[in-house]
Parts: sequence; structure tokens; C-alpha cells
Amino acid sequence: MNKFQERIETLRSMMRARGWDAVIVTGSDPHQSEYPALRWKQVEWLTGFTGEAGDVVVTLDHAGLWTDSRYFIQAVTQLEGTEVKLHKTRVPGQVLIPEWLSLTFGSRQDAVIAVDSLCQSCEAVRSMKEVFSVAAVPDLLDPMWNDRPGIPQTPVFRLRSGEERSDKIAWLREMASENGCGAILLSALDDVAWTLNVRASDIEYNPLVISYLLVGQDYVKWFVTKGETEDPVTASTFEALASEGIEILPYADVAIALGELEDDLAADPSSLNYELYSAVRCNVVEMASPVRLRKATKNEFEVDGMREAHVRDGVAVEKFLYWLEKSIEGGRRVTEWDAAVKLGKLRSGTDGYLGDSFETISAYGPGAALPHYITPKTDAPVLEPHGLYLCDSGAHYLCGTTDITRTIPLGDCTPLEVRDYTLVLKGHIDLAMARFPEGTPGCRIDALSRAPLWNAGLDFGHGTGHGVGFVLGVHEGPQDIRQNLNGTPMMENMITSDEPGIYREGQFGIRHENLLLCVAAGRTEFGRFLRFEPLTLCHFDTSILDTSLLEKREVDWLNDYNARVFETLSPMLSEAEALWLGEKCKPVQL
Amino acid sequence: MNKFQERIETLRSMMRARGWDAVIVTGSDPHQSEYPALRWKQVEWLTGFTGEAGDVVVTLDHAGLWTDSRYFIQAVTQLEGTEVKLHKTRVPGQVLIPEWLSLTFGSRQDAVIAVDSLCQSCEAVRSMKEVFSVAAVPDLLDPMWNDRPGIPQTPVFRLRSGEERSDKIAWLREMASENGCGAILLSALDDVAWTLNVRASDIEYNPLVISYLLVGQDYVKWFVTKGETEDPVTASTFEALASEGIEILPYADVAIALGELEDDLAADPSSLNYELYSAVRCNVVEMASPVRLRKATKNEFEVDGMREAHVRDGVAVEKFLYWLEKSIEGGRRVTEWDAAVKLGKLRSGTDGYLGDSFETISAYGPGAALPHYITPKTDAPVLEPHGLYLCDSGAHYLCGTTDITRTIPLGDCTPLEVRDYTLVLKGHIDLAMARFPEGTPGCRIDALSRAPLWNAGLDFGHGTGHGVGFVLGVHEGPQDIRQNLNGTPMMENMITSDEPGIYREGQFGIRHENLLLCVAAGRTEFGRFLRFEPLTLCHFDTSILDTSLLEKREVDWLNDYNARVFETLSPMLSEAEALWLGEKCKPVQL
Repeated sequence: MNKFQERIETLRSMMRARGWDAVIVTGSDPHQSEYPALRWKQVEWLTGFTGEAGDVVVTLDHAGLWTDSRYFIQAVTQLEGTEVKLHKTRVPGQVLIPEWLSLTFGSRQDAVIAVDSLCQSCEAVRSMKEVFSVAAVPDLLDPMWNDRPGIPQTPVFRLRSGEERSDKIAWLREMASENGCGAILLSALDDVAWTLNVRASDIEYNPLVISYLLVGQDYVKWFVTKGETEDPVTASTFEALASEGIEILPYADVAIALGELEDDLAADPSSLNYELYSAVRCNVVEMASPVRLRKATKNEFEVDGMREAHVRDGVAVEKFLYWLEKSIEGGRRVTEWDAAVKLGKLRSGTDGYLGDSFETISAYGPGAALPHYITPKTDAPVLEPHGLYLCDSGAHYLCGTTDITRTIPLGDCTPLEVRDYTLVLKGHIDLAMARFPEGTPGCRIDALSRAPLWNAGLDFGHGTGHGVGFVLGVHEGPQDIRQNLNGTPMMENMITSDEPGIYREGQFGIRHENLLLCVAAGRTEFGRFLRFEPLTLCHFDTSILDTSLLEKREVDWLNDYNARVFETLSPMLSEAEALWLGEKCKPVQL
Repeated sequence: MNKFQERIETLRSMMRARGWDAVIVTGSDPHQSEYPALRWKQVEWLTGFTGEAGDVVVTLDHAGLWTDSRYFIQAVTQLEGTEVKLHKTRVPGQVLIPEWLSLTFGSRQDAVIAVDSLCQSCEAVRSMKEVFSVAAVPDLLDPMWNDRPGIPQTPVFRLRSGEERSDKIAWLREMASENGCGAILLSALDDVAWTLNVRASDIEYNPLVISYLLVGQDYVKWFVTKGETEDPVTASTFEALASEGIEILPYADVAIALGELEDDLAADPSSLNYELYSAVRCNVVEMASPVRLRKATKNEFEVDGMREAHVRDGVAVEKFLYWLEKSIEGGRRVTEWDAAVKLGKLRSGTDGYLGDSFETISAYGPGAALPHYITPKTDAPVLEPHGLYLCDSGAHYLCGTTDITRTIPLGDCTPLEVRDYTLVLKGHIDLAMARFPEGTPGCRIDALSRAPLWNAGLDFGHGTGHGVGFVLGVHEGPQDIRQNLNGTPMMENMITSDEPGIYREGQFGIRHENLLLCVAAGRTEFGRFLRFEPLTLCHFDTSILDTSLLEKREVDWLNDYNARVFETLSPMLSEAEALWLGEKCKPVQL
């Protein structure tokens, strides 16, 4: 019995002792973060599964992991040696957890489902309570998790964002009073960081501070200290905020403070956990966090910063691609892991670099067919001088955040690789060139990037675009460009990725990704229009294009883009690199 | 004071006598039909407004008509001489009726809103009741409407549809029992006609029978007779249905029958009126009518019939276009009205013709800039030998229903007309050529027809496509191709229009419309795909195309389409017409 199976059995002993019929363990934290800190990687601790999306249900005679197609192969490998069964989500005929529980306990009215009330939103627990007897237990696994990591407390620093925190707080007070509330609680970590203009590294790849912010009409309470810390950066940050009248309070005190509120409280039920929700005695006015939309539409300072971040990032990535090509040409042995390390080194030497914005996907050949491939540290596949290499990576700088994917031919490619490479790029370009009326949601233009693939009987299972934060999460809402019918319109100064792809299992994967800034595109008698401007600066390789599949306007876009990349980046490259990039950016003839 | 203003004043006397503060008059009938029979054209009777969409609110000191941009100009003209104010809907900042009532009566808890409980759905009245005191009065205007038309009773005939009514009834019984119901009520007129394979002409342009159908596990009750009738066709229809065990009952008896039900009743709250809903004593299981989706996916008999209908219709329209061109060339005086009459004559001479499927829009120049232009009977504009003529028309045949728009250059056109004409056709073609994965809803491919317009700063305010019934309504759901995020997927054998347009006020209007059949487009490793096949057969005029705006694949589609039109229709045309069509269908060179 491996250690994970042992843990599942220990959990079952606890279940028997407490009279629980099922336990749900989710992959999130008390703030409903997309990526949790180690302390809250409960699914990983319990089962060994490390995918970014996965929830577990344990009953006395079953253990299951629910995850989507990005992680099917990984789950099967990582769950080996345990009894945990894979339950596939986002597939036809899927049976999600609530449905599965109903099927399992349907006839038993008295079945008790235990959930970690800290790590589930009040929205989720309430809807479960409509159907089941729910035991809401904070830190459910804590008693059996001996060496559990503590709550992170990395240095907290201030970050310029073009808007004073006092103005943001004044605006939040307005939002609260407009909704008849005495106070507003921010529980999503990026909402808090955005409002206070602070950052830290409490979660890997996410420059956030684990904390809650309670903004009342005549106070601001930041629940952030998590034990002794003597870090001077943090101390000076706290001092500065305190001097502006912000109370710095212990993280654990938020529940007590919420319990003492008398006037109505505004809170977002999708990020407020059930434990805190239960602590509130006053009326809760539930609303989507107003910060969500506001921070998605970047201010001019943030836009300028994002542009600068992409220049710096572009230089690092071009230097990497130069190194890669020369290494392969020179017959050097380079593994996927080596390549990722090299790129990380180039980025980390860049001015203002804070850290990567997610784990680099460095994948050659079949590995790239997994959209969320994890490059193995040891025995990583070696890059060979043929076929396609895919690299999806990004970084946080003090001035902005990046997320870029390039797929690079390392030598000869098959006709299928050439065709797929070209069609994915065609889709990328068609979305990047789009002009559309103000008010159009992303789901209505998603097809522009897919149509060239659909016409050839191809498609990809992930979304085409996600929002990107300003030195916050590399995935942020509320807008996106994908299959799901999300009605949030694309708005000026939103930043969204454009990343169509094609994945052929066992063969290769292709993805071309730039970040796009949404900008005004004039007013006609038919209304105001918007369009996109690429922020990402890094050439698209044209050596294996099948130009017969492209239209003139697409080739024009590509040539203009590559010319702009060369013009902007070449002054920051070595002579050899600049010469090389000049060759790469030469216009394609139709 | 004109007669409409007099009627409004009479209504106010009634309101004072009964203590009503506001009366809502809607443009629908007891079945929530899109187009009502004369008896229920209450908005028109009260205000003079004849648009297809419009609701009226009368208070003691205000009268307002709520309608959308299609009818703004018409409303202003028709409401002249009354106090009725236009309230614009589907515009930014719109204030809809419930909101307007709240603003008007906000502080008065005791304000009474009267509605016609026969002509409002139970869904609508219930949501109003959450906010206001509602007086639900059946046939509210009846006491003051002296010469009100009766309930229509046109001849009811049987129609072959490729599926026996006994099979449809058996399926409905299954639907009812699957939902735990003893019976299912069909209140939408096209649902009833589809189920019983019957048609009539109770509503102009809609071959429907005003009736309700109640299907129980061991009975079928059709509430249809509306007084004495000696029509032999109807008699034989009733006899045939009765011989199959269907009870033919008086229309007005439906309320009593519903009141006597004991087991649960399945009903669609969007078409069930509030009066009938109130009559039910048993539990109502509310669900979208299962007929809606089922009848949208045509069976093979219906598909074949629709194909045949489009051959016949295409011949009539081509003959019309030939006549039109020769008349204009010959310097004959042709008004918009003359043209509509000519087309109507050509169609009505066609085998199996039942009637037009909507009022023909015959519009030259500026008139065509109104998407729902009504051609005046007298003093209609004369067609001149230059510029664009738009004709949107359709018919019901025994074998199927058509809906086609062609925009025809009558001579020289301006560069703006040429460009817009080409771009609208480009949009039409791009949607018609689309291939997309099974499960894709229409709103996700709507942009394919708009992108060529958007790129030029153009757009149109209406949807791109609506479903079309099989000798039922020319507009039917549940699928569509439009801006609104309707999640119903496009499915095999659905028939949907493809009709992008451009409307320049005071100048011209362009719309190119075919009906498209959704068909299978193969399975790849990425899933099943669908595509469209045009049902409509009538050439697109290529004489004023700006081919520099088209891509090769678009020109190829156009040439193939026109060639197919010529091949299919020319054998049914006169020699002169066929020769002419041959010229029109000659391939365009890029």
C-alpha cells in the first residue's frame, strides 16, 4: 500500500468515527484561488495527483478523482498504486460530483457528506445542502496531515499601478454604499492585491498575498499577518499602509470581525468560503466582486507597463530561440528540461523580473500533444533536429505579466505538421485581425480563430483566450474567448490571450499564442468598433508555412508583425542574434 | 380626436370605473403566436400601429408603445393624431415595460395593473405579480370593441408529413409519462398542427388552426370547433381524426377540461396563457414543449418536400426577375406594389401553392433601408433603371415553405452600393460555407457572416438566421443564428435562414437570403462535423460584384451555386428565360 492509499484509509477511519458517508476534497484554498499554496494542495497530498484541476470524493468503498481531458493521461499515471478511479469531466455523458453522489446515496436520506468549509465557496456548499446532509468542517484533513505546510508569508512589497490605493478604496466604498452596504469584503487574492497595490509570492507563480480585505465606510481592515515575521520589506509595506489608516490585522481574525458587522455586507459568493459566510451575522448582499471587471480593463499606466514587459520578455524569448536553433544545428544534446532551464535563466536576468507566471511547458513531439504537459526534470525527452518543439511560458515583471507560446520547427517537418502549423497560425491571425462592434462578448468571436481549423475537420478542446492580470494571476476573468457562452463583452484595455492549437496524440502539438490588447477601432454610422493589438513581441517562424493556405491579408498581417518584432527587439540583441532575427522576420511572399 | 385616441379615452373610462391604474395590451393571442389573427390585433385596434412587434401601456395620463428599431419610423407615422408616445426597445438605455411601471408607480404599493389574461403567458403574468397588484382579465378590450372579428375558422385540411399522427401522439404520451405526467397540453398553434398533421389558414400567412391539444395516456382531446361550420374539407378532416379516436371538442371547453384533470399536467409556460393556467387544479409540470425541438429537425419526407418547394419557388422567382429586368429595360412603369403583385401571381400559379408565408417586402432604394418595410398599395415608389431593388418573400406549398431575399441592381449602382452589395454577399457565403463541430450553437457562428462587414465598419441590427417550419410558421425556434446567446445547438436537418444585410437610412438596403439545411460533414479524430446546404434556388446577381473583395473559395462557391441554380431550374423555364438565366449564372472570374 503506497502512502496515498494509506492516507485514504486513515481518512476512512476518521469518516467511520464521525459518521460521514463521503468526503469531498477540492483543489482550491480558502480564497477559491485557481492555484493554491502548498498548504492547500489537499488533492495532491491525498492522492498524488498534481494536475491544476481536480476534486476528490472518498466514500467507504470508493475513491474517485474528477478532472478534465487536459489531465486524463497524467491522472492515470499518478494514481497508479492507489484505488482512486478517474472520473472524466467535460466529456459527453459526464457524471459530475453532485450527480454521482445522488446516484450513490440516492435512496439514503441520512447520508452525510463532509466538505472542507474553508476551501469551498458558500455558493457551492449551499447548493449541496439543498440535496444532502452536509457536515461543513474547516480544515477537514488537518488532523491527519502531520507535516502540513503553514500559511505562506513571503515578503510583501508595494507595486506602482497608476492608481492610488486611497482612490481604489474610495471607489470600493462607493460600490458598497450603492448596494446599500456598510462594508465590502474582498476574499479573492487578486482583488486584494489590486486594491492595495501590494504583491508577494505566497503562491507559486502568483505574486499574491494570502489575506482578506474588509473595506467599511470609515475603516479598512487588512487581515494579513500570519505569525512572526521580521522581513524588512513587509515591515515597511505594513508601515506605509498603516500610515494611510489601513489596519493591519491577523489573518485568522477575519471571522471574528465579520461576526461583529451590523450593517449589510457586500461579498462575492463565488470566492467567499462557507466557513466565513457562516461567521457573518449581518445581512450579506451577494454580488460579483466589482474589482473583477475593473481590474480587467487596464489603466494607461498598466497598459504601458504591459507593453514594456513584452519588450523585455520578447528579448529573452528571442535569445532563447536563437540559442535553441544554434544548439540543435550544432548537434548539442538538449532535453526539454534543459531548454526550459535556459529560458528561465534568460528571463531571470531581465530587469524587473519577479518570477515565472506559470510552469514552463517545454515539449517536443508527442509531449506537446498534451496541452498541459509537465516537462520531467529527469530523463526528459531530447530535442531532435526535425519536427516541432512547443514552448508555452511567461513571467511577471515589476511592470507587467507575459504569457507566450511558440511552436518551432527544429528541422524537417511532415506535410501534416506543415499544414496544421499553418492552419493554427491562420486561426491565430484571423482572431488577431478581427474588428467587431463594442459590446461583443468573446464567445461570439471565438469561431474566427477556429473556422480555418473546422474547415479542415480540426478543432481544439481548450478555450482560445483567457484574460491576463497586471502582475496578478496569469488567468483572470471576467472576459474570455471560448466555447462557453460567457456574455461579458470585450472592452477597451482588456488583455486576452489568442492561443488556438492542434493536438495529435502520440505525434505532435501546435499552439501559437500572443496576448492581445483590446483597443478602439473607430466609430461609423453603425456604431463603435473595437480591435486587437498584439502585445507579445516574438517572431512567428515562417520557414514551414504552406502559404497556399493563407490569404493575402493574413500574410500581410504576419509580415507586418514580424517586421515590428525585428524593429523593436533587434537593438537589444547581440549582433549575431539581430542578424539571425532579421532573417527570421523577412517578409513571406504569397 | 381620431378614432384611436377616442378608443384610448374609452379605455380610460373603463379603467376609472374598475380602479385600474394601468392597462397592458400586447400584440399576441391566447396561444402566444408571433402573428395574431385580426381578432387579437388589439394594439392595432387601439392605437393604429400595425408593426409585428409592439406592446402598449395606457395609464390615466400616459399612453406608450414599446417597439424595436425595425418599426421606429412606422410607429411615428402611424401614431400621429394620438397621444401615444414611442418607447424604443433594443436600444442602449432602454426602459422596458416592467421597469417603466416600477418607475411610474414605484411609491404606490396599491397601483393596479390590468392585463389581458388570455393574451399573456402565465410566465409573464406571474413575474409581473411578483412586483405589482395585477388584475388578470380575459378579453379585456372586448366590452369596448363593437365590431370585433370572431375567432377564425378556415377550412382544416390534412397534410402529409412523413410521420403518422398516431406515432406523434404515442411519442407525446411518452414525453408526458417520462416527466411524471398524466397528460400534456400543446398550446402553441404550430405544435398542434405538427402533431395532428393538419393545416388551415386561421392566421394570415400562417397555415395554422386556432386550437388546443390535450394528449392524455388514454385520450386525445382537440379543442377546435368555434361555432357552426359546414365546410366539407373540415368535416372530412374531423371525421378522419375522430375515426382514430381523437375527440373533436369546442375551442372554449379547454378551460373546463383542464380544470377536471387530476394527474400532473405537462405544459409550456411560455405559450400557456394565464387564464388557462389559472383554470388548472392539478399540478403543472412546466417544461419547454418537446415538439419545439422535434419539429425543428425535419424528417426525410419533410426535407425532400422542402427541396421540391424550393425548386417550384425558384422557378417563380426567376420568372419574376426576368420579367422585372425586361420591364425596366423596356422603360415600363413598375412600382414596388406592381412588382409584389407580379411575384404573387407567379407564385400562386405554382402547383401546391397555399399562400405567401409573410407579406412580401418589395422595396426600391430608401424603402429597402427599413428591414421590415411595408410596400404601400397606392402611390408606391416607382422602380428606376439604377440602384438597388430588394425583394424579401416566401410561400407555403403543400410540400414545404420558402423564404428568400434577393437584392437586384436595376442599372448603374454607386461605388458604395457595389461595395456593400459585395460585402453582404461575402458574409452570406462565409456562413453558407461554414463547417463546424456538432453541438455548436448558432450564436457561435453568427460572426462568420458579420466579420466581412465588421472589418469595413458595418453591421446590421437583426439576426442572421431564423428557423423555418415545414408548412408552419416561417419563423420557428428553438435554434437561430444571431447576437443573443441562445445555447441551442445547430443539428442535422434543421432549416435556418442566412440573411445578413446592410441598411443605409435614406439611401438603400441590401439583404441576401437563402434557407440552409444543416447536414452531416463527416467525422474526424476531432469529432463529428456539420455544414450547410442551400435549399433556396435562385441566382445571385454577379453584375455589380467587386470581386477584389472576394476570396477564391467564395467565388468558387458562388459559381457552383449559380451553376446549380441554372441546371435545376432552366428546364422549367421558357426558352427566353432559360437563355437569360444562363447569362446570369455564368461563372465570375477572379
